[in-house]
Amino acid sequence: MPSVIIGTIADGRPNFMLCTWVSRVNRTPPIWMTSINRKHLTMNAIRVNGNFSMNFPSTDLVKKTDYVGITSGRDADKSEVFNIFYGETKAPMIEECVLNMELEVEEMIERPDHFIILAKSINTYASQQILTDDKPDIKKMNQIVYTGAEGQPSYWSVGEKIGSAFSIGKKLKE
Amino acid sequence: MPSVIIGTIADGRPNFMLCTWVSRVNRTPPIWMTSINRKHLTMNAIRVNGNFSMNFPSTDLVKKTDYVGITSGRDADKSEVFNIFYGETKAPMIEECVLNMELEVEEMIERPDHFIILAKSINTYASQQILTDDKPDIKKMNQIVYTGAEGQPSYWSVGEKIGSAFSIGKKLKE
Repeated sequence: MPSVIIGTIADGRPNFMLCTWVSRVNRTPPIWMTSINRKHLTMNAIRVNGNFSMNFPSTDLVKKTDYVGITSGRDADKSEVFNIFYGETKAPMIEECVLNMELEVEEMIERPDHFIILAKSINTYASQQILTDDKPDIKKMNQIVYTGAEGQPSYWSVGEKIGSAFSIGKKLKE
Repeated sequence: MPSVIIGTIADGRPNFMLCTWVSRVNRTPPIWMTSINRKHLTMNAIRVNGNFSMNFPSTDLVKKTDYVGITSGRDADKSEVFNIFYGETKAPMIEECVLNMELEVEEMIERPDHFIILAKSINTYASQQILTDDKPDIKKMNQIVYTGAEGQPSYWSVGEKIGSAFSIGKKLKE
């Protein structure tokens, strides 16, 4: 899964949390999904504010990314871990992250231990340095891949390209 | 995102489709989310059957994985692309994939071009060869990472380990 840092205003200050249960869920408009444990401070902040940010860190931010995943905003002030900027909403975004989105909540669906949040992306910000022909370039983004099913949950880099999507299977089609 | 092959019975025969909009959404019980375009044959099959499978291919299956992503079950019989096995439901699972789940639909949430499907995993099957100390091992699984935001959507291997999750940030916490 991708490693994503969720940004909110919680108890009056910027707060950040690692989340890896994230996916796009609609093409047009661009709607995203994240599922967050109901006990998290971030969950309550999203409920109160109706907005949040998603920030995509590169591998050089892995320690800070992990730190905001293991430290609750109830126990520590995480507002100064990153440099912050704002867009149209009051959701804080992270300057050090190469891609940022601000989102407005559309719907929250309750499950026993998590809330599934459906939210529309209203603005996306990409660092110039990650673009190739004006499109995000995954090798430049150098995102953090998360794996959680195994004995030791881990972070990984993206590896070697093994094929172009919607292309490499064309010969089997013929 | 992970590359996942969704298995269903559609129009009376096994059918498979690549999907990368997939995430876990609840811890206990294990509930998963997938979002599928409303026009796909798979979407209708899931609605009719109330169940489906998720199959996780390794990189050696990348061509067949792409093929089932670019070919509709309306145009081609995909029932013989893979060797099939069954569990408790009538959702077909793929022998060649190292990890398989069969799921029962809990809820479908409509959006303009996709349906978001929440489904409970009722059985998971892992190949012995991917286990280390009885847990799935991501390097042995050798999953296919999908990136779609860039100019050329692509498949990638998982790269180098850059840290242990919920651990590498502990020093910042101290």
